[in-house]
Amino acid sequence: MTEADMDARHRARMQRKKAVVERSIAAAREERGVLLVNTGNGKGKSSAAFGLVARALGHGLKVGVVQFIKGRSDTGEEAFFRAQPGVSWHVSGEGFTWDTQDRARDVATAAAAWDRARAFLADPGIGLVVLDELNIALKYRYLEIDTVLADLRARPAMQHVVVTGRAAPPELVAAADTVTDMGVVKHAFAAGVKAMPAMEW
Amino acid sequence: MTEADMDARHRARMQRKKAVVERSIAAAREERGVLLVNTGNGKGKSSAAFGLVARALGHGLKVGVVQFIKGRSDTGEEAFFRAQPGVSWHVSGEGFTWDTQDRARDVATAAAAWDRARAFLADPGIGLVVLDELNIALKYRYLEIDTVLADLRARPAMQHVVVTGRAAPPELVAAADTVTDMGVVKHAFAAGVKAMPAMEW
Repeated sequence: MTEADMDARHRARMQRKKAVVERSIAAAREERGVLLVNTGNGKGKSSAAFGLVARALGHGLKVGVVQFIKGRSDTGEEAFFRAQPGVSWHVSGEGFTWDTQDRARDVATAAAAWDRARAFLADPGIGLVVLDELNIALKYRYLEIDTVLADLRARPAMQHVVVTGRAAPPELVAAADTVTDMGVVKHAFAAGVKAMPAMEW
Repeated sequence: MTEADMDARHRARMQRKKAVVERSIAAAREERGVLLVNTGNGKGKSSAAFGLVARALGHGLKVGVVQFIKGRSDTGEEAFFRAQPGVSWHVSGEGFTWDTQDRARDVATAAAAWDRARAFLADPGIGLVVLDELNIALKYRYLEIDTVLADLRARPAMQHVVVTGRAAPPELVAAADTVTDMGVVKHAFAAGVKAMPAMEW
Protein backbone atom coordinates (compact mmCIF):
# COMPACT_ATOMS: atom_id res chain seq x y z
CA MET A 1 0.00 0.00 0.00
CA THR A 2 1.41 3.43 -0.95
CA GLU A 3 1.56 6.34 1.48
CA ALA A 4 -1.31 7.98 -0.46
CA ASP A 5 -3.42 4.82 -0.11
CA MET A 6 -2.73 4.72 3.64
CA ASP A 7 -3.73 8.35 3.95
CA ALA A 8 -6.95 7.82 2.00
CA ARG A 9 -7.85 4.73 4.02
CA HIS A 10 -7.15 6.59 7.25
CA ARG A 11 -9.36 9.50 6.16
CA ALA A 12 -12.26 7.22 5.23
CA ARG A 13 -11.96 5.33 8.53
CA MET A 14 -11.89 8.54 10.55
CA GLN A 15 -14.91 9.95 8.67
CA ARG A 16 -16.90 6.84 9.63
CA LYS A 17 -15.66 7.12 13.22
CA LYS A 18 -16.57 10.81 13.39
CA ALA A 19 -20.15 10.00 12.33
CA VAL A 20 -20.44 7.34 15.05
CA VAL A 21 -19.01 9.66 17.71
CA GLU A 22 -21.34 12.49 16.71
CA ARG A 23 -24.42 10.26 16.86
CA SER A 24 -23.44 9.12 20.39
CA ILE A 25 -22.89 12.68 21.55
CA ALA A 26 -26.25 13.80 20.13
CA ALA A 27 -27.97 10.95 22.02
CA ALA A 28 -26.43 11.89 25.41
CA ARG A 29 -28.36 14.97 26.53
CA GLU A 30 -29.02 14.51 30.23
CA GLU A 31 -27.05 16.73 32.64
CA ARG A 32 -26.73 15.57 36.23
CA GLY A 33 -24.37 14.41 38.92
CA VAL A 34 -22.81 11.02 38.22
CA LEU A 35 -22.17 8.18 40.68
CA LEU A 36 -18.88 6.55 39.67
CA VAL A 37 -17.53 3.33 41.19
CA ASN A 38 -13.89 2.28 40.73
CA THR A 39 -13.44 -1.35 41.73
CA GLY A 40 -11.35 -4.43 40.87
CA ASN A 41 -7.98 -5.69 42.05
CA GLY A 42 -5.77 -3.52 39.84
CA LYS A 43 -3.96 -0.25 40.48
CA GLY A 44 -5.80 3.01 39.73
CA LYS A 45 -9.02 3.03 41.76
CA SER A 46 -8.01 5.74 44.24
CA SER A 47 -5.62 7.57 41.91
CA ALA A 48 -8.43 7.94 39.33
CA ALA A 49 -10.61 9.46 42.06
CA PHE A 50 -7.81 11.90 42.95
CA GLY A 51 -7.45 12.81 39.28
CA LEU A 52 -11.12 13.79 39.31
CA VAL A 53 -10.47 15.96 42.37
CA ALA A 54 -7.94 17.92 40.28
CA ARG A 55 -10.38 18.03 37.36
CA ALA A 56 -13.19 19.33 39.60
CA LEU A 57 -10.95 21.99 41.14
CA GLY A 58 -10.01 23.08 37.61
CA HIS A 59 -13.71 23.70 36.98
CA GLY A 60 -14.00 25.73 40.19
CA LEU A 61 -15.97 23.11 42.14
CA LYS A 62 -15.55 22.39 45.83
CA VAL A 63 -14.55 18.84 46.80
CA GLY A 64 -15.08 16.68 49.89
CA VAL A 65 -12.96 13.58 50.44
CA VAL A 66 -13.46 10.87 53.07
CA GLN A 67 -10.85 8.10 53.27
CA PHE A 68 -12.50 5.17 55.02
CA ILE A 69 -9.41 3.05 55.53
CA LYS A 70 -6.33 4.83 56.69
CA GLY A 71 -3.22 3.16 55.35
CA ARG A 72 -0.49 5.65 56.15
CA SER A 73 -0.51 9.27 57.19
CA ASP A 74 2.17 10.57 54.83
CA THR A 75 0.59 10.11 51.40
CA GLY A 76 1.41 12.48 48.57
CA GLU A 77 -2.26 13.00 47.73
CA GLU A 78 -3.13 14.11 51.25
CA ALA A 79 -0.14 16.47 51.49
CA PHE A 80 -0.97 17.96 48.11
CA PHE A 81 -4.75 18.34 48.32
CA ARG A 82 -4.93 19.49 51.95
CA ALA A 83 -3.00 22.57 50.79
CA GLN A 84 -5.55 23.37 48.04
CA PRO A 85 -8.37 25.84 48.63
CA GLY A 86 -11.75 24.22 47.99
CA VAL A 87 -10.83 20.77 49.36
CA SER A 88 -12.11 19.26 52.63
CA TRP A 89 -10.08 16.12 53.37
CA HIS A 90 -11.07 13.71 56.11
CA VAL A 91 -9.07 10.59 56.96
CA SER A 92 -10.81 8.00 59.06
CA GLY A 93 -9.51 5.11 61.02
CA GLU A 94 -6.32 3.94 62.55
CA GLY A 95 -4.79 1.69 59.96
CA PHE A 96 -5.63 -1.17 57.65
CA THR A 97 -8.24 -3.61 58.92
CA TRP A 98 -5.48 -6.18 59.36
CA ASP A 99 -3.61 -3.76 61.63
CA THR A 100 -6.45 -2.87 63.99
CA GLN A 101 -7.76 -6.47 64.20
CA ASP A 102 -10.62 -5.02 66.23
CA ARG A 103 -14.00 -5.22 64.55
CA ALA A 104 -15.98 -3.20 67.10
CA ARG A 105 -13.53 -0.32 66.85
CA ASP A 106 -13.56 -0.47 63.03
CA VAL A 107 -17.39 -0.33 63.02
CA ALA A 108 -17.40 2.76 65.26
CA THR A 109 -14.74 4.43 63.12
CA ALA A 110 -16.67 3.72 59.92
CA ALA A 111 -19.87 5.15 61.43
CA ALA A 112 -18.07 8.38 62.30
CA ALA A 113 -16.61 8.56 58.79
CA TRP A 114 -20.07 8.05 57.30
CA ASP A 115 -21.38 10.99 59.34
CA ARG A 116 -18.75 13.12 57.63
CA ALA A 117 -19.65 11.68 54.23
CA ARG A 118 -23.35 12.35 54.85
CA ALA A 119 -22.59 16.01 55.60
CA PHE A 120 -20.82 16.31 52.22
CA LEU A 121 -23.70 14.49 50.49
CA ALA A 122 -26.18 16.96 52.00
CA ASP A 123 -24.24 20.05 50.86
CA PRO A 124 -25.13 21.40 47.39
CA GLY A 125 -22.04 23.64 47.60
CA ILE A 126 -19.85 20.54 47.15
CA GLY A 127 -19.60 19.47 43.51
CA LEU A 128 -17.61 16.25 43.99
CA VAL A 129 -17.53 13.82 46.91
CA VAL A 130 -14.85 11.10 47.02
CA LEU A 131 -15.56 8.10 49.25
CA ASP A 132 -12.17 6.38 49.13
CA GLU A 133 -12.13 2.68 50.11
CA LEU A 134 -15.80 2.80 51.04
CA ASN A 135 -16.17 -0.60 49.34
CA ILE A 136 -13.88 -2.13 51.97
CA ALA A 137 -16.01 -0.75 54.80
CA LEU A 138 -19.07 -2.23 53.05
CA LYS A 139 -17.37 -5.56 52.37
CA TYR A 140 -16.59 -6.07 56.05
CA ARG A 141 -20.10 -4.84 56.92
CA TYR A 142 -18.76 -1.97 58.99
CA LEU A 143 -21.56 0.04 57.32
CA GLU A 144 -25.04 -0.93 56.11
CA ILE A 145 -25.42 -0.78 52.33
CA ASP A 146 -29.02 0.46 52.65
CA THR A 147 -27.98 3.51 54.68
CA VAL A 148 -25.25 4.31 52.17
CA LEU A 149 -27.56 3.97 49.17
CA ALA A 150 -30.28 6.11 50.76
CA ASP A 151 -27.84 8.95 51.44
CA LEU A 152 -26.38 8.69 47.93
CA ARG A 153 -29.86 8.84 46.38
CA ALA A 154 -30.82 11.89 48.47
CA ARG A 155 -27.81 13.97 47.40
CA PRO A 156 -28.06 17.20 45.32
CA ALA A 157 -28.92 16.51 41.67
CA MET A 158 -25.70 17.95 40.21
CA GLN A 159 -23.29 16.46 42.75
CA HIS A 160 -20.80 13.85 41.51
CA VAL A 161 -19.67 11.01 43.77
CA VAL A 162 -16.75 8.61 43.34
CA VAL A 163 -16.59 5.42 45.41
CA THR A 164 -13.41 3.32 45.38
CA GLY A 165 -12.23 -0.04 46.68
CA ARG A 166 -12.09 -3.70 45.74
CA ALA A 167 -15.20 -5.83 45.72
CA ALA A 168 -17.89 -3.19 45.21
CA PRO A 169 -21.18 -4.67 46.45
CA PRO A 170 -23.68 -5.54 43.67
CA GLU A 171 -26.30 -3.16 45.11
CA LEU A 172 -23.85 -0.25 44.70
CA VAL A 173 -22.92 -1.34 41.16
CA ALA A 174 -26.64 -1.43 40.33
CA ALA A 175 -27.16 2.11 41.69
CA ALA A 176 -24.08 3.57 39.95
CA ASP A 177 -24.02 5.37 36.59
CA THR A 178 -20.44 4.48 35.65
CA VAL A 179 -18.49 1.48 36.96
CA THR A 180 -14.93 0.58 36.04
CA ASP A 181 -13.37 -2.75 36.95
CA MET A 182 -9.64 -2.18 37.20
CA GLY A 183 -8.02 -5.49 36.36
CA VAL A 184 -4.41 -6.41 37.15
CA VAL A 185 -2.45 -7.34 34.05
CA LYS A 186 0.78 -7.13 36.06
CA HIS A 187 2.06 -5.26 39.12
CA ALA A 188 5.57 -4.09 40.01
CA PHE A 189 5.05 -5.14 43.65
CA ALA A 190 4.76 -8.80 42.62
CA ALA A 191 8.07 -8.39 40.76
CA GLY A 192 9.82 -7.25 43.94
CA VAL A 193 9.56 -3.46 43.62
CA LYS A 194 8.75 -1.60 46.85
CA ALA A 195 5.63 0.58 47.09
CA MET A 196 7.29 3.68 45.64
CA PRO A 197 6.38 7.25 46.67
CA ALA A 198 4.46 9.14 43.93
CA MET A 199 3.38 5.81 42.48
CA GLU A 200 1.67 3.87 45.32
CA TRP A 201 1.23 6.52 48.04
CA MET B 1 -23.18 -16.31 65.55
CA THR B 2 -22.88 -13.92 68.49
CA GLU B 3 -21.22 -10.52 68.27
CA ALA B 4 -18.29 -11.93 70.29
CA ASP B 5 -17.91 -14.82 67.81
CA MET B 6 -17.95 -12.37 64.89
CA ASP B 7 -15.30 -10.25 66.56
CA ALA B 8 -13.10 -13.29 67.27
CA ARG B 9 -13.47 -14.57 63.71
CA HIS B 10 -12.65 -11.14 62.34
CA ARG B 11 -9.53 -10.90 64.52
CA ALA B 12 -8.28 -14.33 63.43
CA ARG B 13 -8.90 -13.51 59.76
CA MET B 14 -7.09 -10.18 60.04
CA GLN B 15 -4.12 -11.79 61.83
CA ARG B 16 -3.72 -14.22 58.92
CA LYS B 17 -4.08 -11.36 56.43
CA LYS B 18 -1.50 -9.27 58.29
CA ALA B 19 1.02 -12.10 58.06
CA VAL B 20 0.45 -12.42 54.30
CA VAL B 21 0.77 -8.66 53.78
CA GLU B 22 3.96 -8.50 55.84
CA ARG B 23 5.57 -11.35 53.89
CA SER B 24 4.78 -9.58 50.60
CA ILE B 25 6.20 -6.28 51.84
CA ALA B 26 9.37 -7.98 53.05
CA ALA B 27 9.83 -9.58 49.61
CA ALA B 28 9.52 -6.27 47.73
CA ARG B 29 12.83 -4.51 48.29
CA GLU B 30 13.80 -2.99 44.97
CA GLU B 31 13.58 0.81 44.67
CA ARG B 32 13.35 2.30 41.19
CA GLY B 33 11.20 4.21 38.77
CA VAL B 34 8.13 2.32 37.62
CA LEU B 35 6.65 2.18 34.12
CA LEU B 36 2.86 2.09 34.52
CA VAL B 37 0.41 1.50 31.66
CA ASN B 38 -3.32 2.28 32.02
CA THR B 39 -5.26 0.69 29.20
CA GLY B 40 -8.68 -0.84 28.45
CA ASN B 41 -11.99 0.64 27.34
CA GLY B 42 -13.24 1.83 30.74
CA LYS B 43 -13.14 5.22 32.44
CA GLY B 44 -10.12 6.05 34.61
CA LYS B 45 -6.99 5.71 32.47
CA SER B 46 -6.15 9.41 32.25
CA SER B 47 -7.73 10.40 35.55
CA ALA B 48 -5.56 7.80 37.35
CA ALA B 49 -2.50 9.35 35.70
CA PHE B 50 -3.59 12.82 36.88
CA GLY B 51 -4.09 11.45 40.39
CA LEU B 52 -0.44 10.35 40.33
CA VAL B 53 0.55 13.87 39.26
CA ALA B 54 -1.05 15.16 42.48
CA ARG B 55 0.62 12.36 44.46
CA ALA B 56 4.03 13.18 42.97
CA LEU B 57 3.63 16.91 43.67
CA GLY B 58 2.76 16.01 47.26
CA HIS B 59 6.14 14.29 47.50
CA GLY B 60 7.89 17.35 46.08
CA LEU B 61 8.65 15.82 42.68
CA LYS B 62 8.58 17.70 39.39
CA VAL B 63 6.19 16.40 36.73
CA GLY B 64 6.12 16.53 32.92
CA VAL B 65 2.90 15.82 31.03
CA VAL B 66 2.48 15.33 27.27
CA GLN B 67 -1.05 14.87 25.94
CA PHE B 68 -0.74 13.17 22.56
CA ILE B 69 -4.36 13.54 21.45
CA LYS B 70 -5.96 16.86 22.08
CA GLY B 71 -9.67 16.47 22.71
CA ARG B 72 -10.70 19.89 23.97
CA SER B 73 -8.78 22.89 25.25
CA ASP B 74 -10.87 23.63 28.34
CA THR B 75 -10.29 20.56 30.53
CA GLY B 76 -10.32 20.87 34.30
CA GLU B 77 -7.05 18.96 34.66
CA GLU B 78 -5.18 21.33 32.35
CA ALA B 79 -6.59 24.45 34.03
CA PHE B 80 -5.74 23.07 37.45
CA PHE B 81 -2.26 21.63 36.88
CA ARG B 82 -0.95 24.41 34.63
CA ALA B 83 -1.34 26.69 37.64
CA GLN B 84 0.78 24.40 39.88
CA PRO B 85 4.49 25.03 40.36
CA GLY B 86 6.53 21.98 39.37
CA VAL B 87 4.32 20.93 36.44
CA SER B 88 5.25 21.24 32.73
CA TRP B 89 2.11 20.56 30.67
CA HIS B 90 2.29 20.10 26.91
CA VAL B 91 -0.80 19.50 24.75
CA SER B 92 -0.18 18.18 21.29
CA GLY B 93 -2.36 18.04 18.26
CA GLU B 94 -5.42 19.69 16.92
CA GLY B 95 -8.25 17.42 17.92
CA PHE B 96 -9.27 13.78 17.97
CA THR B 97 -7.96 11.69 15.07
CA TRP B 98 -11.49 11.57 13.71
CA ASP B 99 -11.57 15.37 13.63
CA THR B 100 -8.30 15.99 11.79
CA GLN B 101 -8.85 13.09 9.30
CA ASP B 102 -5.35 13.89 8.08
CA ARG B 103 -2.82 11.17 8.71
CA ALA B 104 0.28 13.04 7.52
CA ARG B 105 -0.48 15.96 9.82
CA ASP B 106 -1.18 13.62 12.74
CA VAL B 107 2.19 11.90 12.18
CA ALA B 108 4.05 15.21 12.20
CA THR B 109 2.18 16.33 15.32
CA ALA B 110 2.98 13.08 17.13
CA ALA B 111 6.67 13.38 16.22
CA ALA B 112 6.80 16.87 17.71
CA ALA B 113 5.04 15.63 20.85
CA TRP B 114 7.54 12.78 21.17
CA ASP B 115 10.41 15.29 21.02
CA ARG B 116 8.87 16.95 24.07
CA ALA B 117 8.40 13.59 25.79
CA ARG B 118 12.02 12.64 25.06
CA ALA B 119 13.23 15.85 26.71
CA PHE B 120 11.29 14.92 29.88
CA LEU B 121 12.61 11.34 29.72
CA ALA B 122 16.19 12.65 29.54
CA ASP B 123 15.80 14.95 32.56
CA PRO B 124 16.62 13.40 35.96
CA GLY B 125 15.07 16.46 37.61
CA ILE B 126 11.63 15.20 36.55
CA GLY B 127 10.27 12.51 38.84
CA LEU B 128 7.12 11.60 36.93
CA VAL B 129 6.36 11.74 33.21
CA VAL B 130 2.77 11.29 31.99
CA LEU B 131 2.33 10.29 28.35
CA ASP B 132 -1.42 10.68 28.02
CA GLU B 133 -3.07 8.85 25.09
CA LEU B 134 0.32 7.71 23.79
CA ASN B 135 -1.28 4.30 23.12
CA ILE B 136 -3.56 5.92 20.53
CA ALA B 137 -0.59 7.46 18.71
CA LEU B 138 1.06 4.01 18.73
CA LYS B 139 -2.11 2.23 17.63
CA TYR B 140 -2.42 4.42 14.53
CA ARG B 141 1.35 4.06 13.97
CA TYR B 142 1.92 7.80 14.22
CA LEU B 143 5.00 6.81 16.24
CA GLU B 144 7.36 3.82 16.06
CA ILE B 145 7.11 1.53 19.08
CA ASP B 146 10.86 0.82 18.94
CA THR B 147 11.75 4.51 19.28
CA VAL B 148 9.36 4.88 22.19
CA LEU B 149 10.70 1.80 24.01
CA ALA B 150 14.33 2.83 23.52
CA ASP B 151 13.70 6.27 25.04
CA LEU B 152 11.73 4.74 27.93
CA ARG B 153 14.55 2.27 28.67
CA ALA B 154 17.18 5.05 28.61
CA ARG B 155 15.38 7.23 31.19
CA PRO B 156 16.78 8.02 34.67
CA ALA B 157 16.61 5.03 37.03
CA MET B 158 14.27 6.67 39.57
CA GLN B 159 11.90 8.31 37.10
CA HIS B 160 8.29 7.06 36.99
CA VAL B 161 6.35 7.05 33.71
CA VAL B 162 2.61 6.60 33.15
CA VAL B 163 1.29 5.79 29.67
CA THR B 164 -2.45 5.90 29.01
CA GLY B 165 -4.85 5.00 26.21
CA ARG B 166 -6.89 2.12 24.87
CA ALA B 167 -5.22 -0.79 23.13
CA ALA B 168 -1.71 -0.62 24.62
CA PRO B 169 0.63 -2.44 22.21
CA PRO B 170 1.89 -5.82 23.50
CA GLU B 171 5.53 -4.65 23.31
CA LEU B 172 4.74 -1.81 25.72
CA VAL B 173 2.84 -4.14 28.07
CA ALA B 174 5.87 -6.47 28.06
CA ALA B 175 8.21 -3.60 28.94
CA ALA B 176 5.97 -2.19 31.70
CA ASP B 177 6.20 -2.92 35.43
CA THR B 178 2.53 -2.36 36.25
CA VAL B 179 -0.35 -2.64 33.81
CA THR B 180 -4.02 -2.06 34.60
CA ASP B 181 -6.79 -2.98 32.21
CA MET B 182 -9.70 -0.67 32.96
CA GLY B 183 -12.82 -2.57 31.98
CA VAL B 184 -16.24 -1.00 31.41
CA VAL B 185 -18.90 -2.48 33.66
CA LYS B 186 -21.23 0.37 32.73
CA HIS B 187 -20.94 3.99 31.61
CA ALA B 188 -23.28 6.96 32.15
CA PHE B 189 -22.72 8.13 28.55
CA ALA B 190 -24.38 4.98 27.21
CA ALA B 191 -27.37 5.74 29.48
CA GLY B 192 -27.80 9.18 27.89
CA VAL B 193 -25.81 11.38 30.31
CA LYS B 194 -23.67 14.10 28.69
CA ALA B 195 -19.92 14.19 29.25
CA MET B 196 -20.11 16.19 32.49
CA PRO B 197 -17.44 18.70 33.58
CA ALA B 198 -15.34 17.42 36.54
CA MET B 199 -16.25 13.87 35.58
CA GLU B 200 -15.21 13.44 31.92
CA TRP B 201 -13.12 16.56 31.21
